[in-house]
Amino acid sequence: MDCKHFQQKFNIQFNNEELLKQAFMHTSYVNEHQDDSLKDNERLEFLGDAVLELTVSQHLFRAYPDMSEGELTKFRANVVCEPSLEQFSRELQLSDYLLLGKGEEASGGRERPAILADAFEALMGAIYLDRGFETALNFLEEHIFPDVEPGAFSHVMDYKSQLQEHVQKDGESVEYEIVDEIGPDHNREFIAAVTLNEEKIGTGRGRSKKEAEQDAAKEGLAKLTK
Amino acid sequence: MDCKHFQQKFNIQFNNEELLKQAFMHTSYVNEHQDDSLKDNERLEFLGDAVLELTVSQHLFRAYPDMSEGELTKFRANVVCEPSLEQFSRELQLSDYLLLGKGEEASGGRERPAILADAFEALMGAIYLDRGFETALNFLEEHIFPDVEPGAFSHVMDYKSQLQEHVQKDGESVEYEIVDEIGPDHNREFIAAVTLNEEKIGTGRGRSKKEAEQDAAKEGLAKLTK
Repeated sequence: MDCKHFQQKFNIQFNNEELLKQAFMHTSYVNEHQDDSLKDNERLEFLGDAVLELTVSQHLFRAYPDMSEGELTKFRANVVCEPSLEQFSRELQLSDYLLLGKGEEASGGRERPAILADAFEALMGAIYLDRGFETALNFLEEHIFPDVEPGAFSHVMDYKSQLQEHVQKDGESVEYEIVDEIGPDHNREFIAAVTLNEEKIGTGRGRSKKEAEQDAAKEGLAKLTK
Repeated sequence: MDCKHFQQKFNIQFNNEELLKQAFMHTSYVNEHQDDSLKDNERLEFLGDAVLELTVSQHLFRAYPDMSEGELTKFRANVVCEPSLEQFSRELQLSDYLLLGKGEEASGGRERPAILADAFEALMGAIYLDRGFETALNFLEEHIFPDVEPGAFSHVMDYKSQLQEHVQKDGESVEYEIVDEIGPDHNREFIAAVTLNEEKIGTGRGRSKKEAEQDAAKEGLAKLTK
């Protein structure tokens, strides 16, 4: 793990370079070395996950002043999730810095999605601990947030498309129906149902018909893929 | 909503008192008033949830240097969840400040757990937006974190006790067994199974036997209560 290379590349100076190194230390590396001073990156990953939750929330809150809480929550969940974090990790080429055990290395651990995503989270935890919240936020604003827009995450957010893709493998298709509308006019909610072969596989609710259908699709997808 | 009272009671001065007021504005209040300038507290709640995730994570990270990532994650989930947030809200007597619609008020909304928990989250979002991360952290360190210790959340964390309570209603009891141990000595993991009437209802894994049993109990509980 070349701390100097990392710090030059990302223009960030750690007070405690051990924290930076720890962010890339996979548990397989620690297990292989008889050195009690080594710590794996799992606790940093715990902290970094929360750093991401807040920095991403703030970014979305400001960038999308008209999004509802429900939409913001979905959007955040699709940014702070393994496939997205893996993608960020690849863009920053973090795999160059990973410290892995020999077995993990030999079995392709350097390209494993979970290991890449975890290292990204741990790195955010290390930056936060060593340099504070503002530096963590600036790092993401420079390297990650320019990529974060609704279109970029539509593959994860759109449950209707995902459900459709899932069932059409078997040559089937699903149907949606708005089965109820509740609440007063100024605070309407819609209830949607989704059926597959005339069997209901999910229901959902939302402030718009589309939102209710997405919610129903999410439940249907969970049912079919569990 | 008496902003002055709130600010004196909690010794916190807002730059923008509208944000403080918004934190207590339930959607039922906004729906009842024909005033486009009013905004409910839902977006602040989205932000406040993430403020809590990070402040609580940092608190636990520092207070429990020997907890594993898995234990920290469970602990955090039990602090940042509706029953706990409702409890914090009651301790701070936030219900005094709630702005509710007449129907919500008449049907007991001022005591509704979700409304109380949401207001606490929204308040944290408002403090963060208006006064920054450090002030939000200080507020929690003064009013909330002194209550946050593993014992205080054992009612939520202890799945074995919960499962036992659940089955003894029917005069039954469950049994645990360690069915496997995997990994090298220095990185041992245990696999536990829990059975009810000789039928396996859950399995779990963990770094200790107790952790594995808790994990198995969680699965068993989910199976019996779904």
